[in-house]
Amino acid sequence: MNEFEFIKNIKKKYRLDLIGDDCAILPKDPNSDLLISSDLLVEDIDFRLDWTSPEMLGHKALAVSLSDIAAMGGTPEWALLSIGIPESLWSSKFLDRFYDGWHELAKHHDVKLAGGDISRTPNKLVIDSTVGGSVETGSAIVRSGARVGDSIYVTGPLGGAAAALRLLNQGERIGAGSKDVLLKKQVAPEARVAIGKQLRESGAVTAMIDLSDGVSSDLMHLCRASNVGAVIVANELPFEADVMEVAGSVDAMLDIVLNGGEDFELLFTAPQEKISTLNLTDVFRIGEVTGTVGVIELERDGKRELLPPGGYRHF
Amino acid sequence: MNEFEFIKNIKKKYRLDLIGDDCAILPKDPNSDLLISSDLLVEDIDFRLDWTSPEMLGHKALAVSLSDIAAMGGTPEWALLSIGIPESLWSSKFLDRFYDGWHELAKHHDVKLAGGDISRTPNKLVIDSTVGGSVETGSAIVRSGARVGDSIYVTGPLGGAAAALRLLNQGERIGAGSKDVLLKKQVAPEARVAIGKQLRESGAVTAMIDLSDGVSSDLMHLCRASNVGAVIVANELPFEADVMEVAGSVDAMLDIVLNGGEDFELLFTAPQEKISTLNLTDVFRIGEVTGTVGVIELERDGKRELLPPGGYRHF
Repeated sequence: MNEFEFIKNIKKKYRLDLIGDDCAILPKDPNSDLLISSDLLVEDIDFRLDWTSPEMLGHKALAVSLSDIAAMGGTPEWALLSIGIPESLWSSKFLDRFYDGWHELAKHHDVKLAGGDISRTPNKLVIDSTVGGSVETGSAIVRSGARVGDSIYVTGPLGGAAAALRLLNQGERIGAGSKDVLLKKQVAPEARVAIGKQLRESGAVTAMIDLSDGVSSDLMHLCRASNVGAVIVANELPFEADVMEVAGSVDAMLDIVLNGGEDFELLFTAPQEKISTLNLTDVFRIGEVTGTVGVIELERDGKRELLPPGGYRHF
Repeated sequence: MNEFEFIKNIKKKYRLDLIGDDCAILPKDPNSDLLISSDLLVEDIDFRLDWTSPEMLGHKALAVSLSDIAAMGGTPEWALLSIGIPESLWSSKFLDRFYDGWHELAKHHDVKLAGGDISRTPNKLVIDSTVGGSVETGSAIVRSGARVGDSIYVTGPLGGAAAALRLLNQGERIGAGSKDVLLKKQVAPEARVAIGKQLRESGAVTAMIDLSDGVSSDLMHLCRASNVGAVIVANELPFEADVMEVAGSVDAMLDIVLNGGEDFELLFTAPQEKISTLNLTDVFRIGEVTGTVGVIELERDGKRELLPPGGYRHF
């Protein structure tokens, strides 16, 4: 059983109807809903200290949760930060530098640190990042609204974070090198808050999710929630030249683009005619919603094959 | 530098005015404020798996955060649960049983699980427990309202959790034994939500905090926030017979009662005449607020001595 199946089980067992989107949506006031989301980052599982700097890790800890607010089209407002830290890191300047990086991004998004906790750990660093935000009552974009015939879009090129992960595993490190732009997609990703909000306000979007696990996996979450299927057109998938360079072949590139996680771009569905009138730059149409419930197909050179969800699993 | 000094530093550096109470207080709607708090629990630092059952650990993970809402006089409403879990525990029934215990207490307090995260860890279990609640606008009891001459109260007998911790360290385990009532104070504490709310509604209370670190330490947080001092009367400290039995001497008992943490009783200040008219059972007057800013004294056999904050520190 993987973590998605486990969550599905407890959701059913305890009737947890607030769970199932990027954020929980709770009533806030007569005009707005409260959005909240948590992300746990564990050393040597979700990140490695020798891949990053304390500042970039602080940035990433906030960015991954901001991305969940972005996926609902919301505005982030406050955050909680719980940090479990081993003695050795505590006595260094690590945490000061971590907060500097965290705060730099928080300032940019006007997010206030409202609380959290600090505990010692036996040896590994763990970070739980919670972000709260708001959205006009009833207007949050959920995963369950995709309709057959909608087009499927992403807000930017894909595979950068996974390609960077491969380079990091090969020993490449961020510094003054030519690979820094690519490596930053893994160690210091950006959350697509502004475009998320713009998409919600456009009224065109029917469903949205952030790309944290991988296109094939996240699109499957969206399709299951919407009771639809999807076809992705391989030739339409956006990626940058350096991803192709790392991949080395078209097949490897497709694997990275479809199954690599942590791009933190938004994937959304909408009627094509509505999106074309919005004049959005950096929004790419990658496929279409179909009626074959729970099935995602990849169209390549005119042929369609089944695309199983292949993103990262913790278990 | 310990964790309290670190938090004080970043609070000052980044002007984090939402930090400093048991919960952050955020505006919610025209009638109420949002209360939120997080607590991180780390295996082998904050708990040991052989001390407890999965159900009791689930109970405790929620109780410690409910206690923060209680300390503000608020009503808990929703929760987030982030769990980092090693492979070995994942493949057992541990997490199902953990959620059972969590959910049992959540049901009692009408708290809904709204989200969270699950990640793998290399070897230790970590839990970050966040609870959100509400309170009438501007009515949350903070730490900073204590006034010279107020009496100091606690909502129940003290030292139970610390005495239990000593027994656990000596090899005692929860089961069908005669020590189970005491041991449960450490492994499955209760949050004092109802009395916290009652105290706030009484209008009598000037400041409140929950006893998570220890009386001497938590009272110091309250005194510093209120710019006052305090005197505690040793003979007035409430404790149960089994704490005295574990301690073995009056001095050891006083140390447990004053410096032992995790009782999760509430400590509050109020004018004595207001409290006496409320006919509260299980509320004990233990001392008085003084004008000697930042100084806590212990009065014992007519003599006063300095009481340094002696509760648990992670660093």
